[in-house]
Amino acid sequence: MTDFPFQLEAQDRATAARAGRFTTRHGEVLTPAFMPVGTAGSVKTLTPDELVAAGADILLANTYHLYLRPGVDTVRRMGGLHRFMGWSRSILTDSGGFQVMSLSELRTVSDRGVEFRSHLDGSRHLLAPEDAIRIQDGLGTDIAMSLDELVRMPAEAGAVREAVDRTVRWAGRGFAERERLRGEGSGGMALFGIVQGGTDATERARCFEGLSRHGFDGWALGGLWVGEGRSLGLEMVEHDTAMLPASRPRYLMGVGHPVDLIEAVARGVDMFDCVLPTRNARRGTVFVSTGRLVVKNAAYANDERPLDPECDCYTCRRFSRAYLRHLFAAGELLGMRLASLHAVHQMVSLARRARAAVVEGRYAEFRAAFLEKFRSRATLAPAAGA
Amino acid sequence: MTDFPFQLEAQDRATAARAGRFTTRHGEVLTPAFMPVGTAGSVKTLTPDELVAAGADILLANTYHLYLRPGVDTVRRMGGLHRFMGWSRSILTDSGGFQVMSLSELRTVSDRGVEFRSHLDGSRHLLAPEDAIRIQDGLGTDIAMSLDELVRMPAEAGAVREAVDRTVRWAGRGFAERERLRGEGSGGMALFGIVQGGTDATERARCFEGLSRHGFDGWALGGLWVGEGRSLGLEMVEHDTAMLPASRPRYLMGVGHPVDLIEAVARGVDMFDCVLPTRNARRGTVFVSTGRLVVKNAAYANDERPLDPECDCYTCRRFSRAYLRHLFAAGELLGMRLASLHAVHQMVSLARRARAAVVEGRYAEFRAAFLEKFRSRATLAPAAGA
Repeated sequence: MTDFPFQLEAQDRATAARAGRFTTRHGEVLTPAFMPVGTAGSVKTLTPDELVAAGADILLANTYHLYLRPGVDTVRRMGGLHRFMGWSRSILTDSGGFQVMSLSELRTVSDRGVEFRSHLDGSRHLLAPEDAIRIQDGLGTDIAMSLDELVRMPAEAGAVREAVDRTVRWAGRGFAERERLRGEGSGGMALFGIVQGGTDATERARCFEGLSRHGFDGWALGGLWVGEGRSLGLEMVEHDTAMLPASRPRYLMGVGHPVDLIEAVARGVDMFDCVLPTRNARRGTVFVSTGRLVVKNAAYANDERPLDPECDCYTCRRFSRAYLRHLFAAGELLGMRLASLHAVHQMVSLARRARAAVVEGRYAEFRAAFLEKFRSRATLAPAAGA
Repeated sequence: MTDFPFQLEAQDRATAARAGRFTTRHGEVLTPAFMPVGTAGSVKTLTPDELVAAGADILLANTYHLYLRPGVDTVRRMGGLHRFMGWSRSILTDSGGFQVMSLSELRTVSDRGVEFRSHLDGSRHLLAPEDAIRIQDGLGTDIAMSLDELVRMPAEAGAVREAVDRTVRWAGRGFAERERLRGEGSGGMALFGIVQGGTDATERARCFEGLSRHGFDGWALGGLWVGEGRSLGLEMVEHDTAMLPASRPRYLMGVGHPVDLIEAVARGVDMFDCVLPTRNARRGTVFVSTGRLVVKNAAYANDERPLDPECDCYTCRRFSRAYLRHLFAAGELLGMRLASLHAVHQMVSLARRARAAVVEGRYAEFRAAFLEKFRSRATLAPAAGA
């Protein structure tokens, strides 16, 4: 499978952390990579140029949302998702499976696929594994995800087992669909398989065993960080990365918090996506190097310092906590925008620094230093006399 | 009054249009000038850098809002409004009078000033003419406005006359307060007087007569565009500009629509402010050279063209109507932001082009060409086959 070249450039000694790079039709992506989430074809409040300035090599876009609105036809007519949204670097799309399960009404899962009603207008749709592949191809994605079946946890062992079986069958159908498309001259995107099985290591191993019959370009760790807690989540990450091939990227879906990223990189994860940083930002909370800063709090009303004195994003270079706090208090959209800009910059930059540490063979020290500082909450107390 | 130098650089022959420039502590302002409105210390959704890129020399900030939140003390502690909001060019503040009358509860107007309850928390405040000057000085404004009394139209002749009398008395008190502040080493800002009198030319003349006893740095045309209609509004503009000194800038408050700007410039107005372009933008409607484009309409869902093919703002250079329409349909904040960016660029650029036409002695032709094109609605029809 050389049409999705992934090179491992460095492997840390003391941890399982890796530094790598892969290339898509839209450029290089350095790993570990944090992918900002552009749900409906827009990373909320931010322009593509700001995302480039933040150092993002790749974004995530949600197939479910784009399929329902504006629809694949419109995106295709506008020259594909990259042109439509003005983003010329890489895009990874999810399959739509997660949103179908979490957002739509009247979902029926059968071996055909998922039948659901749109949360927008109640229209009926069937999302089969082949459809998920065709839709992502129609959007012009660089990396597509297989349609998988998620099980709401906690679940009975039988439900987990059935979902794993279906995930394996669907993944095979999706892979075959991509081969069929390639025969027709499209389907050029990379395709990742997704390991499911909840927090049952045996089921996850069985899932991978089934999926590994196909030549997926990369591997996602699915069904985690859904309420099981960080400790158990990281346990599953360790389990999965031990079995997944070293020569392919590992993508921990829907993760996460800065500490999650640092700990998962230590366990061999290469790619992440999460709405948490930007969602928090829109609500007035950001991560800085010394912890979680609730900048909308009145305590910061006279704090002249930037969100993070060590951050060099536009927000931190130009504005004070006091101004940001004012913007949030006044309900000004600029506040949401400036905080989101910082949030993306902070996560992308964290992944970049993690990578540098791996390349320099000092990831364990980097992790320790990061965690100590992040838990210190230094500089978060309002300035004296404020 | 040479501390607010205003130079007339050109006077059109066929119309009363002028091109000028004045200098404040924060740089030069070329006129005619459109001032984007930064109500609560932020031009909604936009950063100061974007406003500079749009060519804005000067912004308007609302004293009422900033006085109530975050308060003059906080702004002062943060180094003044310019530093607080990261805007290093000129700022004009209004006196607060208009918002007190339109936003707050339980307003009592007496010769003392206006007593009101904050719309935010119901706290009681008295805004006297001296207070309005001190607050604007405390914010660090470059141009302050006198506290005036607005009368809701239609009003009886007696009410208009009393409001004019009070406006004149208050303006004198405000002017004296600035002199007093200057004696203490502050009060360095410019101060404009505001002509009131509704649509009664005699009262407006009487108002100016009273105000002209003081050496105001510039003259605002107040109490217009409050429902009297463009025709009558422009009649009052003609009346006022005929009596106002040619050597001082004329500021038509709260105006406006592109056609209003073009027509008022023709009648000798130099400065404008209006929330209409940016408010419309946030709601999915923008002005382009060929008219009013309701980009959120489904008709544009497949329109590959930019909002305005002749506009060189970031939005028009990078995004299609189809994408913007999608953003509005999806409720994405980026849509509001990109439309607002275009809106500011469009109005500032219109004023700039008007100025160039005056300098070249062809304002009448410029106006005629603009109006013809703006009414043509060319390129607004969705693309064929869309």
